[in-house]
Amino acid sequence: MNSAFADLPDPPYYVVTFSSCRTEGDHGYGAMADSMVQLAAEQPGFLGVESARGTDGFGITNSYWRDEDSIVAWKAIVAHAAAQRIGRERWYEAFQVRVARVERAYGFAR
Amino acid sequence: MNSAFADLPDPPYYVVTFSSCRTEGDHGYGAMADSMVQLAAEQPGFLGVESARGTDGFGITNSYWRDEDSIVAWKAIVAHAAAQRIGRERWYEAFQVRVARVERAYGFAR
Repeated sequence: MNSAFADLPDPPYYVVTFSSCRTEGDHGYGAMADSMVQLAAEQPGFLGVESARGTDGFGITNSYWRDEDSIVAWKAIVAHAAAQRIGRERWYEAFQVRVARVERAYGFAR
Repeated sequence: MNSAFADLPDPPYYVVTFSSCRTEGDHGYGAMADSMVQLAAEQPGFLGVESARGTDGFGITNSYWRDEDSIVAWKAIVAHAAAQRIGRERWYEAFQVRVARVERAYGFAR
């Protein structure tokens, strides 16, 4: 299995879909994105993350969590809150966040 | 606002997150993907779609739907079922589908 896929338990669990359009240039984004994935992975309730961004600058990151409380706690972590602020100031033209409860899942692998 | 973003109503609604790793080469994939987005957009309950794929072949497509019944009906549409079959045979190394109920949403635009 490609390691870009999250290895998740059976539902129910939660997904945060983060759709975003990047500004031009890096401005420290790449290093911060890596750092935030590492920090997220250390949080209680974190289950996994999947991410893709096209050459047009539009990307989707789906992070998976055990429950809503874990998501709310992650949003408030100090280093993450700082990254969110810089995201609005510098890295993103626009983003949309949707918090959803995963009810069923299935897949395929060659 | 970047047109890659879906223009969605307030929650609740549903999201189908389709994470996939493509095989090498096109094999008719690009044309079929465009065709499936058009067909999906004609279905009852369709709200929008967002999609990103990186140069590593890993991609995420989030399609948004009014309710679960709309999602089940879309999965069974004949042309879509044919595309799903070819997807397993030819286009995807692996994929994961998660069906989730969006409970809250927020965003930012410059």
